[in-house]
Amino acid sequence: MPPFSFTIDAECPDTWARTGTLQTAHGTIQTPIFMPVGTQATVKSIAPEELHAAGAQIILSNTYHLMLRPGSELVAEFGGLHSFMHWDGPILTDSGGFQVWSLGHLRKLSEDGVTFKSHLDGSAHMLTPERVMQIEAELGADIILPLDICAAYPCAPLEARAAMERTHRWEERALLAKEHYNPAQALFGIVQGAFEPELRRQSAEIIGNMPFPGLSIGGLSVGEPKAMMWEMLNVVTPALPRNKPRHLLGVGSPEDLVVGVGLGMDMFDCVLPTRVARHGGLFTRQGRVSIKGARFRAEHNPIEVGCDCYTCRNYSAAYVHHLARTEEQLYYRLGSIHNIRFMLRLASELRAAILAGTYVAFRDEFLANYMPASEQVREAQREKWKIARAKQG
Amino acid sequence: MPPFSFTIDAECPDTWARTGTLQTAHGTIQTPIFMPVGTQATVKSIAPEELHAAGAQIILSNTYHLMLRPGSELVAEFGGLHSFMHWDGPILTDSGGFQVWSLGHLRKLSEDGVTFKSHLDGSAHMLTPERVMQIEAELGADIILPLDICAAYPCAPLEARAAMERTHRWEERALLAKEHYNPAQALFGIVQGAFEPELRRQSAEIIGNMPFPGLSIGGLSVGEPKAMMWEMLNVVTPALPRNKPRHLLGVGSPEDLVVGVGLGMDMFDCVLPTRVARHGGLFTRQGRVSIKGARFRAEHNPIEVGCDCYTCRNYSAAYVHHLARTEEQLYYRLGSIHNIRFMLRLASELRAAILAGTYVAFRDEFLANYMPASEQVREAQREKWKIARAKQG
Repeated sequence: MPPFSFTIDAECPDTWARTGTLQTAHGTIQTPIFMPVGTQATVKSIAPEELHAAGAQIILSNTYHLMLRPGSELVAEFGGLHSFMHWDGPILTDSGGFQVWSLGHLRKLSEDGVTFKSHLDGSAHMLTPERVMQIEAELGADIILPLDICAAYPCAPLEARAAMERTHRWEERALLAKEHYNPAQALFGIVQGAFEPELRRQSAEIIGNMPFPGLSIGGLSVGEPKAMMWEMLNVVTPALPRNKPRHLLGVGSPEDLVVGVGLGMDMFDCVLPTRVARHGGLFTRQGRVSIKGARFRAEHNPIEVGCDCYTCRNYSAAYVHHLARTEEQLYYRLGSIHNIRFMLRLASELRAAILAGTYVAFRDEFLANYMPASEQVREAQREKWKIARAKQG
Repeated sequence: MPPFSFTIDAECPDTWARTGTLQTAHGTIQTPIFMPVGTQATVKSIAPEELHAAGAQIILSNTYHLMLRPGSELVAEFGGLHSFMHWDGPILTDSGGFQVWSLGHLRKLSEDGVTFKSHLDGSAHMLTPERVMQIEAELGADIILPLDICAAYPCAPLEARAAMERTHRWEERALLAKEHYNPAQALFGIVQGAFEPELRRQSAEIIGNMPFPGLSIGGLSVGEPKAMMWEMLNVVTPALPRNKPRHLLGVGSPEDLVVGVGLGMDMFDCVLPTRVARHGGLFTRQGRVSIKGARFRAEHNPIEVGCDCYTCRNYSAAYVHHLARTEEQLYYRLGSIHNIRFMLRLASELRAAILAGTYVAFRDEFLANYMPASEQVREAQREKWKIARAKQG
């Protein structure tokens, strides 16, 4: 039996929100949970001890990046990701599928799998459902994901169906392969179906009934309006089995966490909190603030009064502002720690609210106070990131 | 009386090496000591707790940079540098003079002081001996330095003499001004004299006899061959009073620390250990290694077997190599911590050797094992840094 279990500790009577406990070989996770992303076997600028101190219970790492650098065989030689990166808590690795689509060049899709060229050096690679299980076994995460096809937004209905059906076939192959490579890893199923409610419902039913101990909802937050993402969850959640943990892949912001929990999601991951921090955006209960703004130049208070993160306990907002303006490396760390802690404290407050039967009040109060980044701001920011990434390359 | 004292704990019978104890309002420093440099009120990529853990007893910060950003008045509003940057140990601030020469534009020198334009925004500034005392009082370091003129290398003898004599007059003015702004700060004198032995001897005698509680040797390590720097110390040290701590400004590398101690130096500061770390150069007892080299790709051992730094206690060299190759921010921290710890452990080993009467043997063994970067490599590296800095600008 795999060392994995999920128990529901409480459910909200008015929404699909629930709080639970996940057991893994590397420790216990209390849901709802936010998973910081350590793309290249490091959560950018943060050391493992600092992740623990910020309340991180599980992190996510990216199969695509690690298979290219340093290579999964090398990670295996070091006893897997946990010991390689000095993080002793649970880890989830994604399948690499999403990055093949968003980063790889000259992709070619067949029933067997997908071939692509590395975004780093143009070298050719092939991922199949079986190969992904082998790579993820070498990486040794507690929770792993199968190769899937993430349809673009927008996507023609026929194309969406074909991608979903092929993903389903690949997931069956992944289940078989996983037993061969490392039966002890918990392989989550991935629900696809693009933005077609009927496909989403079908995918949830089919994948929900396969012997996966947990389920990830993929193909969302790929450029669609927020409302459309929530509409899909409204279809997916009721079609999923109650007793399996649900992971909303690649989501999201503080408000996404609060809303997503009410739509039945237990686990969240996103680079957003650390990425916006690096660009100066820091979370407060009133919304995101730009630490580089002149209002913080002489601010004696911390970024957010009452915040219990390392940064706010030890530094004035003025000092963090100074580091951000001078582009000092310590800024990226202090800002990232603040946002990670914000997300993890929020997750634990959501859990407490669900246990207390007050989730709806908590959600409504949070959303009333929190000013989200508008779609327009988000689009501008995505453009800026694209340019920054291109420059790095 | 200023809260500052220096006592000599032991002296080497064969060289000018000695070990002592410095008392400051923010703590005790055991010499010989290396001072990590926190140019912009942060030792690049390292948090104060990590400096303590690496054995840092005092850090140096740069008046020039802080007066421009965030401004010394602002730092004063926050209770000075210690509380602004969350470092509770002793701090030394330099005078800004060196940076005016190396970074400022359109410098104009007069008997009164020096005017220059900021390297950041071209704004005009004037530094006088009195103004520097005011700024350093606002920054609030334990040890402060007076405005001086750092002659270029090479420098005509007449020019060297004029610069030295003006520096001496400025230092007298600084002594008076310091009493006005903050008598509790320990103002060190600066010995100049370029590369003229007779000027160096004169400067050491004149400044050594003025009421400074400590002495910094300036104007060295500005591009001259190493042997010439050591020749100057051979002239300076015997002309200095025995009972005052001696600080070799802007020096240096591991081998400089070991040699400099034998030439009577007690305190050292340099950006080199953190700067070379950021470029992949890490110290070992055999010399500097490049962590990006292929030999570390699958290295299970730490950077240096037996090293007690945070990095070597927790990470394989292969992981550090991976972070360095992927240019992950955690690399800059792990590399910098390793080199800082190397310098501080070396300083404490030097102290132990002097106490044990074995300094000469320690020095000779260290130098026999340690392969220094050659002058050629150092020159190439300086060029690379210049280009990197120009790109940042």
